[in-house]
Amino acid sequence: MRIFDIPKLGEPKFLSPLKLSSIDGDAVCNYVSDDRRIRFNIYYPQEVLDYELKYSLRGDDVTKYINETIEVAGPRERIFFDPEHTSCAIVTCGGLSPGLNNVVRAVVSELYYSYHVKRILGVRYGFAGLNPASGYELMPLHPDEIRTLSNFGGTFLGTSRGNQDVTVMVDELVKNKIDVLFSIGGDGTQRGNYDIFKEIQRRNLPISVIGIPKTIDNDIHLVEKTFGFETAFSKAAESIICAHSEAQSHYNGIGLVKLMGRHSGFIAGYAALALSDVNYVLVPEVPFDLYGPKGFLEDLRKRLERRQHAVIVVAEGAGQEYLTESGEKDESGNKRPSDIGMFLRNEIEKFLRKNNLGGTVKYIDPSYIIRSIPPTPGDALFCSQLGQYAVHAGMSGRTGMLVAWRNNVFVHLPVSAVVNNTKKINPESSFWLSVLGATGQPHNMVNRPRQYLPV
Amino acid sequence: MRIFDIPKLGEPKFLSPLKLSSIDGDAVCNYVSDDRRIRFNIYYPQEVLDYELKYSLRGDDVTKYINETIEVAGPRERIFFDPEHTSCAIVTCGGLSPGLNNVVRAVVSELYYSYHVKRILGVRYGFAGLNPASGYELMPLHPDEIRTLSNFGGTFLGTSRGNQDVTVMVDELVKNKIDVLFSIGGDGTQRGNYDIFKEIQRRNLPISVIGIPKTIDNDIHLVEKTFGFETAFSKAAESIICAHSEAQSHYNGIGLVKLMGRHSGFIAGYAALALSDVNYVLVPEVPFDLYGPKGFLEDLRKRLERRQHAVIVVAEGAGQEYLTESGEKDESGNKRPSDIGMFLRNEIEKFLRKNNLGGTVKYIDPSYIIRSIPPTPGDALFCSQLGQYAVHAGMSGRTGMLVAWRNNVFVHLPVSAVVNNTKKINPESSFWLSVLGATGQPHNMVNRPRQYLPV
Amino acid sequence: MRIFDIPKLGEPKFLSPLKLSSIDGDAVCNYVSDDRRIRFNIYYPQEVLDYELKYSLRGDDVTKYINETIEVAGPRERIFFDPEHTSCAIVTCGGLSPGLNNVVRAVVSELYYSYHVKRILGVRYGFAGLNPASGYELMPLHPDEIRTLSNFGGTFLGTSRGNQDVTVMVDELVKNKIDVLFSIGGDGTQRGNYDIFKEIQRRNLPISVIGIPKTIDNDIHLVEKTFGFETAFSKAAESIICAHSEAQSHYNGIGLVKLMGRHSGFIAGYAALALSDVNYVLVPEVPFDLYGPKGFLEDLRKRLERRQHAVIVVAEGAGQEYLTESGEKDESGNKRPSDIGMFLRNEIEKFLRKNNLGGTVKYIDPSYIIRSIPPTPGDALFCSQLGQYAVHAGMSGRTGMLVAWRNNVFVHLPVSAVVNNTKKINPESSFWLSVLGATGQPHNMVNRPRQYLPV
Amino acid sequence: MRIFDIPKLGEPKFLSPLKLSSIDGDAVCNYVSDDRRIRFNIYYPQEVLDYELKYSLRGDDVTKYINETIEVAGPRERIFFDPEHTSCAIVTCGGLSPGLNNVVRAVVSELYYSYHVKRILGVRYGFAGLNPASGYELMPLHPDEIRTLSNFGGTFLGTSRGNQDVTVMVDELVKNKIDVLFSIGGDGTQRGNYDIFKEIQRRNLPISVIGIPKTIDNDIHLVEKTFGFETAFSKAAESIICAHSEAQSHYNGIGLVKLMGRHSGFIAGYAALALSDVNYVLVPEVPFDLYGPKGFLEDLRKRLERRQHAVIVVAEGAGQEYLTESGEKDESGNKRPSDIGMFLRNEIEKFLRKNNLGGTVKYIDPSYIIRSIPPTPGDALFCSQLGQYAVHAGMSGRTGMLVAWRNNVFVHLPVSAVVNNTKKINPESSFWLSVLGATGQPHNMVNRPRQYLPV
Repeated sequence: MRIFDIPKLGEPKFLSPLKLSSIDGDAVCNYVSDDRRIRFNIYYPQEVLDYELKYSLRGDDVTKYINETIEVAGPRERIFFDPEHTSCAIVTCGGLSPGLNNVVRAVVSELYYSYHVKRILGVRYGFAGLNPASGYELMPLHPDEIRTLSNFGGTFLGTSRGNQDVTVMVDELVKNKIDVLFSIGGDGTQRGNYDIFKEIQRRNLPISVIGIPKTIDNDIHLVEKTFGFETAFSKAAESIICAHSEAQSHYNGIGLVKLMGRHSGFIAGYAALALSDVNYVLVPEVPFDLYGPKGFLEDLRKRLERRQHAVIVVAEGAGQEYLTESGEKDESGNKRPSDIGMFLRNEIEKFLRKNNLGGTVKYIDPSYIIRSIPPTPGDALFCSQLGQYAVHAGMSGRTGMLVAWRNNVFVHLPVSAVVNNTKKINPESSFWLSVLGATGQPHNMVNRPRQYLPV
Repeated sequence: MRIFDIPKLGEPKFLSPLKLSSIDGDAVCNYVSDDRRIRFNIYYPQEVLDYELKYSLRGDDVTKYINETIEVAGPRERIFFDPEHTSCAIVTCGGLSPGLNNVVRAVVSELYYSYHVKRILGVRYGFAGLNPASGYELMPLHPDEIRTLSNFGGTFLGTSRGNQDVTVMVDELVKNKIDVLFSIGGDGTQRGNYDIFKEIQRRNLPISVIGIPKTIDNDIHLVEKTFGFETAFSKAAESIICAHSEAQSHYNGIGLVKLMGRHSGFIAGYAALALSDVNYVLVPEVPFDLYGPKGFLEDLRKRLERRQHAVIVVAEGAGQEYLTESGEKDESGNKRPSDIGMFLRNEIEKFLRKNNLGGTVKYIDPSYIIRSIPPTPGDALFCSQLGQYAVHAGMSGRTGMLVAWRNNVFVHLPVSAVVNNTKKINPESSFWLSVLGATGQPHNMVNRPRQYLPV
Repeated sequence: MRIFDIPKLGEPKFLSPLKLSSIDGDAVCNYVSDDRRIRFNIYYPQEVLDYELKYSLRGDDVTKYINETIEVAGPRERIFFDPEHTSCAIVTCGGLSPGLNNVVRAVVSELYYSYHVKRILGVRYGFAGLNPASGYELMPLHPDEIRTLSNFGGTFLGTSRGNQDVTVMVDELVKNKIDVLFSIGGDGTQRGNYDIFKEIQRRNLPISVIGIPKTIDNDIHLVEKTFGFETAFSKAAESIICAHSEAQSHYNGIGLVKLMGRHSGFIAGYAALALSDVNYVLVPEVPFDLYGPKGFLEDLRKRLERRQHAVIVVAEGAGQEYLTESGEKDESGNKRPSDIGMFLRNEIEKFLRKNNLGGTVKYIDPSYIIRSIPPTPGDALFCSQLGQYAVHAGMSGRTGMLVAWRNNVFVHLPVSAVVNNTKKINPESSFWLSVLGATGQPHNMVNRPRQYLPV
Repeated sequence: MRIFDIPKLGEPKFLSPLKLSSIDGDAVCNYVSDDRRIRFNIYYPQEVLDYELKYSLRGDDVTKYINETIEVAGPRERIFFDPEHTSCAIVTCGGLSPGLNNVVRAVVSELYYSYHVKRILGVRYGFAGLNPASGYELMPLHPDEIRTLSNFGGTFLGTSRGNQDVTVMVDELVKNKIDVLFSIGGDGTQRGNYDIFKEIQRRNLPISVIGIPKTIDNDIHLVEKTFGFETAFSKAAESIICAHSEAQSHYNGIGLVKLMGRHSGFIAGYAALALSDVNYVLVPEVPFDLYGPKGFLEDLRKRLERRQHAVIVVAEGAGQEYLTESGEKDESGNKRPSDIGMFLRNEIEKFLRKNNLGGTVKYIDPSYIIRSIPPTPGDALFCSQLGQYAVHAGMSGRTGMLVAWRNNVFVHLPVSAVVNNTKKINPESSFWLSVLGATGQPHNMVNRPRQYLPV
């Protein structure tokens, strides 16, 4: 198997009911043939890997990837499942992300109206709903009944964190005669999907597991864009505008906004770049010193001298070395960072007092506000497409994969290729340079010259 | 010259003041080397051109393109202009698009703060401002004074349609000692840019012309995304939601929304796909019959029987064969389509009456509302980056080009490669299939079987 | 009967199930006693009627009103209908207004959860739904099923214009054993309510008719605020901002916005006052000359000379004397004004050309966009309260009345006092002065000195 | 002096430049005569004070107020200050409230364009800007330069909390030849205004002090509506919608939102009433037990059993008896409440665990997000009017007063009548009953029957 090969349940024997055809018939859209692929590395000459790519693959053997290609998503002319006798289930897992209801609706609509699959079941409250011990019932879904739900944030199916015993979940799929499981979730969920897929494979069952990647932090490996991310940074921008209004309205006023981003600062970086109001963006990927001549606080002092106010955006995972280890883990087992926002607020207040700068810090933590809203239209249409492509993939008999967006194309990625890594901002990239250009913050707020960010 | 070669004014002799460096120095971002390129065709094997691409190149000799590569944008270590003695001008042309002020601000900021260029001049009211006969003065620009303007729609520089005598404009550039002209505009403007570039070349002047593509319709050839488009279709979605509310609130209520899109229906298609409320999308690229057994009106009748309401989105350039030629042209010389929206409203009302269907048509033409607003955060950050990349390109001595977004990368496209064509929706593409899937409209509303859309 | 006396069906014999009580019991809210009243005229000394009031009563004998008082709305300790055996119906009539679904939801919720009325029926598509000939079925309503509908514009019950035969409608109420009819609508609907009420009275039936005033134009006589109006002018403000962006972006650019308001220009006036961008507000209540030395166009020319752009807001009912009578009437029999917006656009364009002013007119007609959206939170809470107060009134056995807001208090107005007049902007009022102050437009754009607006 | 008499600097000797006139002249608006007044108590018979009023006056001798009348605001035909030789200053104090820039702009515009006052000065950073020791300069203001600022939250003048030495401030007014001081602020600011007014009176100076009440909590005594409040509760509603999405998406999910409101829960109550999603509103005015059979937690348990999720809104000043006294005071000397939000979160989480309910609490504290935004259009127009009326009052020679909104009329209130009290929600009022009706929360969550809220 090559890295991006997609597992298949078997030979697709049924003709797709989509009735697409070419040129001179009634329909004008085309099926996608199985050999339609895009290059993993679009740079030329081939050895010139993009900075981002190089960064995201560190730890991996880059040469493994350099000649790979990735399957293009889309409707296939022949499908594996007989729509009339197919049952599908959908589950939403982990924290909320804008667009969950839209993806579910798109999956249900495409199954029902395009493939004429009639038995579609919603799994309640995440993977817990696949554990009969939880007592949750599967919920029959019909596209007309859930149509308006896409106007609301959250997930009407319910969600939860954490995985369940994989044998129990597969038993439950078998018991309920599920043929395709659409599983929407982040890193942890995709690991869960992988385990379910492996267990199904072990038992040699004709059940497909199709993942739809969901991470508000936009940090899934190899996946260029995840739904909800655009909505999240757009909404986060509102908090920053507020912080700026507060800062400007006070002498040496400082607006401090903490945004989501445990391991990667994309939300912080994107929101900052969308505005002209941010002076500092602190993210997990770029170390900074707080104290000392080149440290953040000293630079902040200079900024206040010049402009009498400042706006700071900090991702929740930044500057963790300053925090006493909280030790807490959340239900999925992720290490919960101590609060860099509160810490920074206190440190800045102390610094202002110590230096007689007057001033005041206005701290904003929008928290759930940026993730429990409905999607922007841009995200909404992305969700519609993700749902449709997931259905095409599932009905074709593919499994152990997820639907993703790369290079402006919807593709299939094997879940095995995705779960081993996290996407991060590359501090050497043009994107980060754009952020630096827009904020005017120093390229480096570390005191010692040092070997920085070895790849 | 190959298709995507970028003209250059000469050898870049100055060290960039950006002071980027690698790994162990102070800065962490990297310059982009001149040989960093992406493939034009990212499909593999190479001959498998993407549907979209094939469609957009029809008329062209596809084989010409298939092995081409495109230069990646970004800051160069050596630049052509000495920042201390460089003067730049910025002009905004044509109809409004959300984000114009953001692009201008980004150009000014990047020039001023990153490259320390101090003489930056705004051209008033489009190319007219480069014609001294118009009496408009150039307007000195400072980033601090225009910072907040990015919160407003429109263009504070002013705009106008139509080109001016190219020799007059180049005279004006020379007279004002302009070294780089940043020119933001659509198809007509890029043709103007090309003429200015050729005239400069003819006179052998060291003046750079850098285009920034602007089209709310998202229809510039080879350019995957233009700023303002996301804002436009997002805002258009609001009108559709209104049309849906009106439709649902009346027995056999029909909501009809006309959206921008003379030659391409991207706004209509994207807005429809973002919602679950649209039943028909009519675009210039996909012919439809109004009357007859397979025509639109007959299908509408069935829809009303099933659901008692319907929502229709029509791009202004759709169904032109039904309109008496208005003959009008706008100031840029574009043929002004007669009003398909009003026509459709009348035809549907007649059809309802003739068939005793009762019902009422609520017609919404949001017109300027979708183009004169400030950008969404997503568009705003795109504008910031476009402005920055345009500055990098201009300072490096490139000319006769525009900055564009392809395959998730900012690139340089020679303006010569862009001005000969228009981007359109490919009715055979997965995108259009997604729209059909989301709306449920028939794949084909044409009565006769026919050779459809020959490429 | 005095002007503001409220008809009652009979003695209220049942104890309210609300179980409010005073001071030392469990509940803390109070019932409203029947003698709680506010003055009609709150000025002192009494003879000093407010300008607005005087204006709105012209034609009436003002002295009749001067000592009147109005009943305060609210829950009564004793009610007329036995909740267990009460059936209620709700109908929404006329054009959409933001908040219709909210009012319906509030009525249903209050009936169900506070009064434990279980049989609640929705009338489909306005008064037509009370005519069996239309074939629409009554629709059973439960608060939990309609909860989320308040997030959507329109009315899920459906609406239509025009009245139906009153005897047919009362027959239908009797046939369906309806005890209280909640009827939401504008002037025409309230006249319909009045006719239904009179017919019920004639037949001596114990059926209550409670009106909830709805007019997006805010023009119901004696009613200070109607739901949806705040939403409408807030949304209209967006179009004006767009018009301003268009105007400013063009040399001698003119933004022209047509807003709803057949007989009164409240939406135009309020939207203008909310912004700093409007230079002219043209409303039906204030005559203006278009031509001549003091006319609008001449003043516009001066404005362009000073500022090179202008923003004009025109209510659809303004300047009707300039229009050729269209003769059209809408389904409710209201005279449909010819289009002042298109007329003005043409006249201004002609004027610009004739005077060689260059310039361009950008015309925006937001039409249904401002009325088919969900309500602002301010309107939403107003709707919640209107619905609750309507239920209190209906259950208490009141009839032939509507629930209204006056002097910051919810009151009961007899429908007879309301249907004979229309509320208008008083051009002598402080409100209009504020508009003039904010726009800077001339107090008078009429050429001849004249006896102006005799009361 | 009667309670609502307004102090005046002297006889108004100048003719207003507004040139209003009646009926047959050029202008159509009227001056307001000095004897135009409204009743304080609009109920009839007079003794029937409104519940709200009675509640807000407790502690006061109600009979004192019952026959009082209040002066109506508006332009006077004769004014005290000669516009040509008048200098005005504007100061914004205390915490941000949406609309500050709008009020300032309206004051400046009205002074400049209507009264032709040319010397208008902005005081920087609150009352501190009237203390020369702070080193802030007065800032000349021109309406054209600040026009667009009303699109931004915050205050471009800057603000600060706390008062300054009153003799120093009056010295500064005298030194700068200020004739009218417009002072925008909350309770503390109005006390400051009162002290300045008394000091001016003591020195017998012809300087007017006009207050414009600002409180995001809507809690200024006798003032029915303050600017920014509508914006605040509208924005707060967004957080509640998010909390609801989070709650619904989790099994036994609880959304908890803390909103502003130290002494009064208007924001919480209004936001809850605007939505259908809130199950509990906890405000300072209505005591509740947390524990025990009738306590909040026990009721919450029942709610979870019925519906598996709950949404709670708590005003920051609610339930203070449960908090260990933090002892902190803010710069204005207001006692800073300990955090009821964090406390409740912890208690609910403990309760869920103890009772094995599973579930999760999602806590949202929108904090500055609801106060640093620009105003809604409704608030914006209110700000425009407040500013205009303040100018009319100041130019007429009134002083020691504030401009306020009562019974749908702009009036003058002597600052002396306002500063001794705080407006609160009356738990016996129809408003609170509406909130209870909309949320379904118990009327009483206190264990012991008791003499509740004696007036």
